[in-house]
Amino acid sequence: MPEPLHDADEALDRAVRLAPALAAGASDRDRERRLPRDEIAALTDSGLLTITVPRRFGGPGLGAETLSRVVALLAAADPSLAQIPQSHFVFLEALARAGSDELRAEIFGRVLAGARIANAQTERFSETVREDVTRVTADRGGLVLTGTKYYCTGAVFADVLAVRAVHDDGRTVIAYVDADAPGITIDTDWNGFGQRTTSSGTVVFDRTPVRADRLLDYSALIDASGTYGARAQLIHAAIDTGIARGALDAAVGVVAAARPWFEAEVSRAADDPLLLVQAGDLELAVRGAESLLATAARRIDDADAAPQPDPAAVGEASLATAAAKVAAGRAARRAASDLFDVGGTRAAAESSNLSRFWRDARTHTLHDPERWKLHHLGRWALDRRLPTGHGSL
Amino acid sequence: MPEPLHDADEALDRAVRLAPALAAGASDRDRERRLPRDEIAALTDSGLLTITVPRRFGGPGLGAETLSRVVALLAAADPSLAQIPQSHFVFLEALARAGSDELRAEIFGRVLAGARIANAQTERFSETVREDVTRVTADRGGLVLTGTKYYCTGAVFADVLAVRAVHDDGRTVIAYVDADAPGITIDTDWNGFGQRTTSSGTVVFDRTPVRADRLLDYSALIDASGTYGARAQLIHAAIDTGIARGALDAAVGVVAAARPWFEAEVSRAADDPLLLVQAGDLELAVRGAESLLATAARRIDDADAAPQPDPAAVGEASLATAAAKVAAGRAARRAASDLFDVGGTRAAAESSNLSRFWRDARTHTLHDPERWKLHHLGRWALDRRLPTGHGSL
Amino acid sequence: MPEPLHDADEALDRAVRLAPALAAGASDRDRERRLPRDEIAALTDSGLLTITVPRRFGGPGLGAETLSRVVALLAAADPSLAQIPQSHFVFLEALARAGSDELRAEIFGRVLAGARIANAQTERFSETVREDVTRVTADRGGLVLTGTKYYCTGAVFADVLAVRAVHDDGRTVIAYVDADAPGITIDTDWNGFGQRTTSSGTVVFDRTPVRADRLLDYSALIDASGTYGARAQLIHAAIDTGIARGALDAAVGVVAAARPWFEAEVSRAADDPLLLVQAGDLELAVRGAESLLATAARRIDDADAAPQPDPAAVGEASLATAAAKVAAGRAARRAASDLFDVGGTRAAAESSNLSRFWRDARTHTLHDPERWKLHHLGRWALDRRLPTGHGSL
Amino acid sequence: MPEPLHDADEALDRAVRLAPALAAGASDRDRERRLPRDEIAALTDSGLLTITVPRRFGGPGLGAETLSRVVALLAAADPSLAQIPQSHFVFLEALARAGSDELRAEIFGRVLAGARIANAQTERFSETVREDVTRVTADRGGLVLTGTKYYCTGAVFADVLAVRAVHDDGRTVIAYVDADAPGITIDTDWNGFGQRTTSSGTVVFDRTPVRADRLLDYSALIDASGTYGARAQLIHAAIDTGIARGALDAAVGVVAAARPWFEAEVSRAADDPLLLVQAGDLELAVRGAESLLATAARRIDDADAAPQPDPAAVGEASLATAAAKVAAGRAARRAASDLFDVGGTRAAAESSNLSRFWRDARTHTLHDPERWKLHHLGRWALDRRLPTGHGSL
Repeated sequence: MPEPLHDADEALDRAVRLAPALAAGASDRDRERRLPRDEIAALTDSGLLTITVPRRFGGPGLGAETLSRVVALLAAADPSLAQIPQSHFVFLEALARAGSDELRAEIFGRVLAGARIANAQTERFSETVREDVTRVTADRGGLVLTGTKYYCTGAVFADVLAVRAVHDDGRTVIAYVDADAPGITIDTDWNGFGQRTTSSGTVVFDRTPVRADRLLDYSALIDASGTYGARAQLIHAAIDTGIARGALDAAVGVVAAARPWFEAEVSRAADDPLLLVQAGDLELAVRGAESLLATAARRIDDADAAPQPDPAAVGEASLATAAAKVAAGRAARRAASDLFDVGGTRAAAESSNLSRFWRDARTHTLHDPERWKLHHLGRWALDRRLPTGHGSL
Repeated sequence: MPEPLHDADEALDRAVRLAPALAAGASDRDRERRLPRDEIAALTDSGLLTITVPRRFGGPGLGAETLSRVVALLAAADPSLAQIPQSHFVFLEALARAGSDELRAEIFGRVLAGARIANAQTERFSETVREDVTRVTADRGGLVLTGTKYYCTGAVFADVLAVRAVHDDGRTVIAYVDADAPGITIDTDWNGFGQRTTSSGTVVFDRTPVRADRLLDYSALIDASGTYGARAQLIHAAIDTGIARGALDAAVGVVAAARPWFEAEVSRAADDPLLLVQAGDLELAVRGAESLLATAARRIDDADAAPQPDPAAVGEASLATAAAKVAAGRAARRAASDLFDVGGTRAAAESSNLSRFWRDARTHTLHDPERWKLHHLGRWALDRRLPTGHGSL
Repeated sequence: MPEPLHDADEALDRAVRLAPALAAGASDRDRERRLPRDEIAALTDSGLLTITVPRRFGGPGLGAETLSRVVALLAAADPSLAQIPQSHFVFLEALARAGSDELRAEIFGRVLAGARIANAQTERFSETVREDVTRVTADRGGLVLTGTKYYCTGAVFADVLAVRAVHDDGRTVIAYVDADAPGITIDTDWNGFGQRTTSSGTVVFDRTPVRADRLLDYSALIDASGTYGARAQLIHAAIDTGIARGALDAAVGVVAAARPWFEAEVSRAADDPLLLVQAGDLELAVRGAESLLATAARRIDDADAAPQPDPAAVGEASLATAAAKVAAGRAARRAASDLFDVGGTRAAAESSNLSRFWRDARTHTLHDPERWKLHHLGRWALDRRLPTGHGSL
Repeated sequence: MPEPLHDADEALDRAVRLAPALAAGASDRDRERRLPRDEIAALTDSGLLTITVPRRFGGPGLGAETLSRVVALLAAADPSLAQIPQSHFVFLEALARAGSDELRAEIFGRVLAGARIANAQTERFSETVREDVTRVTADRGGLVLTGTKYYCTGAVFADVLAVRAVHDDGRTVIAYVDADAPGITIDTDWNGFGQRTTSSGTVVFDRTPVRADRLLDYSALIDASGTYGARAQLIHAAIDTGIARGALDAAVGVVAAARPWFEAEVSRAADDPLLLVQAGDLELAVRGAESLLATAARRIDDADAAPQPDPAAVGEASLATAAAKVAAGRAARRAASDLFDVGGTRAAAESSNLSRFWRDARTHTLHDPERWKLHHLGRWALDRRLPTGHGSL
């Protein structure tokens, strides 16, 4: 049973206190591709998975600002672990925006009691492979779900799976299905060179029963002029920001172990003026990402606080999130790579596993191309056009 | 008599409403190096020069966050004009921190009634020129001030000059001297190619009488572990941030007048996908500067809100300000230069005077070398050392 | 009568010897927008305008490598002056590739005797203005030329104008017309904020007689798979490379006059380690541009040396030139702007006119958008597609 | 017995023809950390290890330009393999410059017959570990060598080891010792995460006999104003340049397998305009490194061609090499990391092992800090000071 959470300060405090335990084994888990079972349990117990549960459903109802800071703190400790609840928060948000009161009461209640959600979204389509979409079809008086989903981060730890599917009636829906329902096979076959322990993988649904009152209208959710997409992106940006900070934090230890370069004529590498100015530029990049993340989260919270949906506020939230995402991705990759300049050749030892920051940063930032976020920002800069609809996801 | 100001929203609102009138003539004033007399009067009337006057002295007592946003808005409209009150705010702050109650009551009262402060700080020392420092000396039972100060931005518009001088008793002091006191000559001989209408120039004091109760102990101010230096830097960062935004705002009009490049196969330059992504990168840089500025302002306000001086909070405020300053300078120079890519050859016409953004950005960012701000950030990143004392100015 | 030129070493040596005289007045000419009459005469006398005249027509027949180095040396001394002969060389090249033997003999002979060529190419078309194209039409048994051309750099110094026009017979032609022929008005109305003394401006042709044997088929020239376009671009890249080097050369004097920053704790600004590393990065950028320019010139010379036109070699020459152009533009703008960091606030004095490097760099690099050069490079990098036809100009 | 080599074209042609076989297994060897025994044999057979053997000793006597191009071609195929002969070429160069005629005749003759040289240079000194230097001492009428060397790339494949040691008589010497001499233990214990199959490791000498006529005076070599240091650096720069090109070459296949991003509205990822411009920027970076490498090699060859040592030419060779090294390192790391943007999430699959380019680039560029190369370039840019002595290594 998670510890009850009340406010933002408490949430941040718990994230700070939880972080060292998550960070302690992160390198070994990465090396061995060992899933963070105990750590996910500790995260659940901390109550941090309940922070966005609305007040009227008994949760603390904390907003995007707290959420993004908590995720960044987790990611600085273990980037893979921080990615696991990304879809948990996204599909709680979907529920808050488009779920029926009954479904909300049920799922939010379970989350307050310790349940975890994970997504089953991505399908595989290419020139050569054209799989069938996942479908919800009528079957013996009920509904069943059939299909295959890939890259289902967190599914193996989930109590409830949020599955996007096409309903017989033509709608695209999100079905909230218990993870232990019949006909579900969950595989953790993700084999990326980074974010190795996100427990991502393939989920197969073979005529899995699904209750009609567990469906949520996806099109409505996406079509609505709202910050749903921006929030999903914000969490990714928070992960990248955390990776950036985690990599840069590692520099303190790396430089302490490093041999000073002879031309610097100093006795500690940390006194090499050229190294300091280079590290300062990294610090600036990471602070830039952190500030843009905070701004984006506030813009989302502002847009959500408006009594009526305000397209300008939603568009600005989307732009602010796009900016945060690009800056975070760049900062993460750069900090993770330049970290080695601080340490010299010995930093390359396989045993110290310092490559994991770059592997995580590089893998996680493949998710959504930053160039198209810049495109959105550019349309605004030159033409005052706001991103719309799906483009902002 | 300035319109009374009450809160942050009102201040921001007035800055937004004042901006178009300031922007309207900025290009012509730059071209003709014509000082913004009417605009300074309008700025004074708006009450915006009173925003930091403490509540106990009758002002709105607004903090660094509001101040930095107001300055950035002014700078987006006219960068030179925005620089004029920089020292006004700095020496009000000096007063708030180190002035006697009597002096504070007097000067704050005059500011609420429309008075303007300007600095007379910089002296000229080099290998070849070694002028005497400005001194306060006893003279016929009173004190007189003698010396020459350079780069005295805003002096010509000031009612009170804040003059740094060495007292007979050995202290470095700030003397608050009426600008129309005997023996003062104010020249606007600044001849930079940018920030042309800041009314900067040389001020000569020739046995100018100064009251003993108008002196403030400068060393105490600087030695105190406080955010005085960070605030001064924050205003500069706000000016640069405003220049960056002003330059990028200009792109909307520039691109509308531009001929699309033939290879883009579009009918409007604003639809060239490569131009959009380039503009998006600029937008990101400017948003980065804006977010870092907001963060720095909040850190200063946080440090100032602490019941006891907290070296960690002050150090963090200093680092956050250093980051804001570097990002703002880079964004300003880059937006001001890349702006032309949006417009093509015709953007180079002398008549459209689009070079002024770069001239202003380049000139204003010479003030303090960004490389040493990165050094401070780097010492923290690698060694967790905070900037101290004068180094943080 | 120009001094005869024989080989590359002689050409480079003359450019090196001529440069100081060109550089001496460059700043004043820029300030006063005074055309470099004496300097153009000196350049002509030096024989450097004959370097590409083919051997069989009595010239030294030097290739793109020598040409680009000479232009870069001239541009380092005076960027405006270096741009004046750009079209001289381009339209000598057009002649070499597509002129009749008679026309070549005539024009090359005149160039060896001291004549200068300039272009009259650009017309004005926009949404609102749709001028008539320049035309060659039959008139009383002869041909006449009528139209208006803009941005005609060097026309006022030219003996012969190379005018693009549409012939009555449907062909696009280049007409080589004597600059003192009837019906020609040459104006130097260019009003850019940079490259101020390129003598660019408007040329009006009002029924100017033109000889049929002075026409050259332009379409044939452009359609031919050759390096004509790359050479034209190469000269622009050489100008930008020269600007970059000129700006960086200026840093030596600027830093010598600068006050060291107090935190560096050095007695000469040139010993500030952070300034050195920053200047080193500029030096790297300028050397990168210089090396890419040399490579591009060699690729053009290689492609031209092939016994048969080789599309792969021509395409590679085009890519190499695109790379040189982008690198040169970036290096020029950056060196011209970062130069000020070396000098501090006093570098901004209008009197030292150090802004001219940036004004020149920014203006000249508007000529052709670098982003589309990157597009060509990207198509090759990802898809091994070579730039074709007009796209490579 | 290596195939005899005659000229530069032949050398480049053989490198081009050898490359595919080296590239074929590079990924698997990296994954399994399996040394390239067959490939080193093939490289030896190709004659490419003889290219710098002077003509008077029977070799082709090719210069730095050919050498750097060959090494870059090898590194594009397999970065680890290309690093193995780095010290082979360096210690052949040492011999050419400072060896006795007898020693040169012997070693060059063996190299022409297929022998390989490797270095044993680096010792371990730190605050905590202070090992004894390697020494040559008198022993029973002869000399023996005792000590431990680390990071001895290529030692396991070498016939002759070039060992730096301190002689009893006070000189620092290079001893050319047969690799199968008594008392030598060679370990390949290198455990970096990149350049995994360079066969680097620890070599222990325990009273290994060494002939007095196999010693070369190291101090003389280093103190001489020559390009010895620049050449050693040039080979490292060539490796980095090759890695950069190899990574970018891989993009062609990666993009062909990638799914286009939906917002690009294209059917092939290689038609996404934003991806093209991004790839174009990478292509520019790689071409910049290649051009700077060619320039540096020519400067070294120029300096070596001077009849008398010319400090200016040597200094310029050193600066040009510094520029090449920094540009190559940056291009390699960037191409290796940005490569993934071209491919999307599937590019992260462990199975495709695309991370190896970054791992190799990141590891190899730790060798010498780029920041201090920039320092050398900056001293020249601001102060016209040339790098001297050891600083140029």
